[in-house]
Amino acid sequence: MEDNIFLKIIRKEIPADIVYEDEEILAFRDIHPIAPVHILIIPKKSIESIARMETEDVPLIGKMFLVARGIARDLNISEKGYKLLIRVGKDGGQEVPHLHLHLLGGARLSENIHPVK
Amino acid sequence: MEDNIFLKIIRKEIPADIVYEDEEILAFRDIHPIAPVHILIIPKKSIESIARMETEDVPLIGKMFLVARGIARDLNISEKGYKLLIRVGKDGGQEVPHLHLHLLGGARLSENIHPVK
Repeated sequence: MEDNIFLKIIRKEIPADIVYEDEEILAFRDIHPIAPVHILIIPKKSIESIARMETEDVPLIGKMFLVARGIARDLNISEKGYKLLIRVGKDGGQEVPHLHLHLLGGARLSENIHPVK
Repeated sequence: MEDNIFLKIIRKEIPADIVYEDEEILAFRDIHPIAPVHILIIPKKSIESIARMETEDVPLIGKMFLVARGIARDLNISEKGYKLLIRVGKDGGQEVPHLHLHLLGGARLSENIHPVK
């Protein structure tokens, strides 16, 4: 049976610092933050990654960004700005096989993305 | 009147290496790539950033990711993986005030995001 840490968080089998929840989406603080604000926004539906999304998932994926926008407003980082990152597959650095959107902010963020030599 | 480089690309006033276009979305190669594959996916509708998106934009934002998925498949990077990044506002490093999604792949990508000291 498919299982991973995010499915366990959705099922409330392991704790998380939840900042938003509705029927379709859950958002919680990353336990290894790389920015002052580091939230993970995930669909409750089991979608492995954007590479595996279907056309029917379009409204759900779009809603994840509306949720991110709202959380950023709630946490007072909306005006200053933030980054939104989705890692897909091995080259993208995805570690958990359940779609997750990183909301990163709370400071001016340097960003260095480059091919591994 | 509001104007910027992406609006000029949408209006075909300046050239771009377009890889996808429909009534709502345009995608083209970034002129300063930071990865072997570096595509920008933008809505034709003028949306400044995710911070300014409205509930009515949810399907359009979701569709941008379906388009990204499709371009990744077309360019044969879907199985290996990629990163999807949206910069929002000053702290996020956004430079052009028109929503744009970065599709980054074609190599295993290192990524270092951290607060500026």
